[in-house]
Amino acid sequence: MLIKRLSIIGVGLIGGSLARALRGVCGEIVGCGRNRANLQKAVELGVIDRYETVPASAVNGADMVIVAVPLGSMAAMFAAIRDALSPDAVISDVGSAKASVVEDARQHLGEHFRRFVPAHPIAGTEKSGVAASFAELFEKRRVIITPLSETDSAAYAKVSAMWEKTGADVVDMSVEHHDKVLAATSHLPHLLAYSLVDTLAKMEASTEIFSFAAGGFRDFTRIASSDPRMWRDICIANQKAILEMLAHFNDDLADLTDAVRSGDAERIENIFGRAKAARDNFCG
Amino acid sequence: MLIKRLSIIGVGLIGGSLARALRGVCGEIVGCGRNRANLQKAVELGVIDRYETVPASAVNGADMVIVAVPLGSMAAMFAAIRDALSPDAVISDVGSAKASVVEDARQHLGEHFRRFVPAHPIAGTEKSGVAASFAELFEKRRVIITPLSETDSAAYAKVSAMWEKTGADVVDMSVEHHDKVLAATSHLPHLLAYSLVDTLAKMEASTEIFSFAAGGFRDFTRIASSDPRMWRDICIANQKAILEMLAHFNDDLADLTDAVRSGDAERIENIFGRAKAARDNFCG
Repeated sequence: MLIKRLSIIGVGLIGGSLARALRGVCGEIVGCGRNRANLQKAVELGVIDRYETVPASAVNGADMVIVAVPLGSMAAMFAAIRDALSPDAVISDVGSAKASVVEDARQHLGEHFRRFVPAHPIAGTEKSGVAASFAELFEKRRVIITPLSETDSAAYAKVSAMWEKTGADVVDMSVEHHDKVLAATSHLPHLLAYSLVDTLAKMEASTEIFSFAAGGFRDFTRIASSDPRMWRDICIANQKAILEMLAHFNDDLADLTDAVRSGDAERIENIFGRAKAARDNFCG
Repeated sequence: MLIKRLSIIGVGLIGGSLARALRGVCGEIVGCGRNRANLQKAVELGVIDRYETVPASAVNGADMVIVAVPLGSMAAMFAAIRDALSPDAVISDVGSAKASVVEDARQHLGEHFRRFVPAHPIAGTEKSGVAASFAELFEKRRVIITPLSETDSAAYAKVSAMWEKTGADVVDMSVEHHDKVLAATSHLPHLLAYSLVDTLAKMEASTEIFSFAAGGFRDFTRIASSDPRMWRDICIANQKAILEMLAHFNDDLADLTDAVRSGDAERIENIFGRAKAARDNFCG
């Protein structure tokens, strides 16, 4: 068994899918959360073997602890489990921003910080909760691990092996680079989608307007159905990189707006053509 | 037969799909375009019966003429076919903006303008060309017709009946309202998608950045793979409504940026929550 006892704190889409994917390589899977009904459902679905509602109890005897809670809850969670962690427990997370989690872990995990391995699976859907979880979520997806100079190499190896078992492709990256890449490819798009839908929702004829939205609009705004609290936390946690990307985007949108205002067909077509070429090239 | 001879000028995704959908209710379908290879393929695929490369020849004897060319080519096309149109020919289009097409038709169709019925099927994919066309494209989609006070009622009825045959749901709207609704639900999202991909493509590590884009990013940017020339024309044709929507969006994005900058979690969550509620409500 790669993992004797796996403790998953936060049995939602990511935590639940990880538990499902690791079924064959874990002795026991213990879930933890605040919502007893959700945990009960997770047991019924066979996602976890049992659950605890007190984090310190959930990590008791676990050799692998995955903290899959919103970024804003990480610090309190690390503080809550620290004194109950086994001396050799490996701790990891699935947060969408890494600098803030690393800082929280450094402050609150004490001597266990060496065995904390920051990780982020680049996978998910706009849905939330254990009912939306599935074992194949991470197959052929990237998982970014951002080890620190002080990270224990055995702990790193165990987290890396765990993610490989889910079918994911594990890559290393620095904390800072991770946060920039994710601000560009994930955080900025989410902010734009939320902002666009909000703009339309505030319009006078919004009900009628939405009724004329076609397939392109549905795809474009799908990520605006994501969990608002989770994304609020990401904005707070990755503020610096997100503001930088927003500034870049604003400059480029101002440029395009200027081209539209001046009716400059060639400039507009150049921008659209560059974007189409990049998208076709990178997204297939 | 609803239509004795249908002339489709521009046998691409929309024109080709319309021809396919009307197979059973047309005596003959004549295609027209500049690209002979594309027209030959359309004949081989059974989309059209034959083709002409000179527009005046293509409309000869047709009782229904659909002009499915980019918005920037409408004026010249109307001028090119005017003198060859049958006295009772009904003319329609599929343009994504209506004020500019109506103005072009008014200026160039002469006495045939009464039988010009402006229409816009709210359907499409990011793909282009007759190879991407399919008969079911318009099923259960909306087709907006924007008749004018001078529009001939029999011509209106024939265009309306034609679209109903494709399985579409036909609705009437004023030209101005159409252009506002489409700026909100289609044109603005396309501009944002193009602009975002362009922003990322210009970054130093763009190749690496795109390689970490997940499913949400692919959906969000799918419309940035749309035809740059077609969308350039839409920006020119619907400039006023697009600039108004861009201004609204900019205000709201500035508001969200300010909330992120000040770390105002509650304000961020309110914006995201409103957007999610609207999206879940309207898009299911």
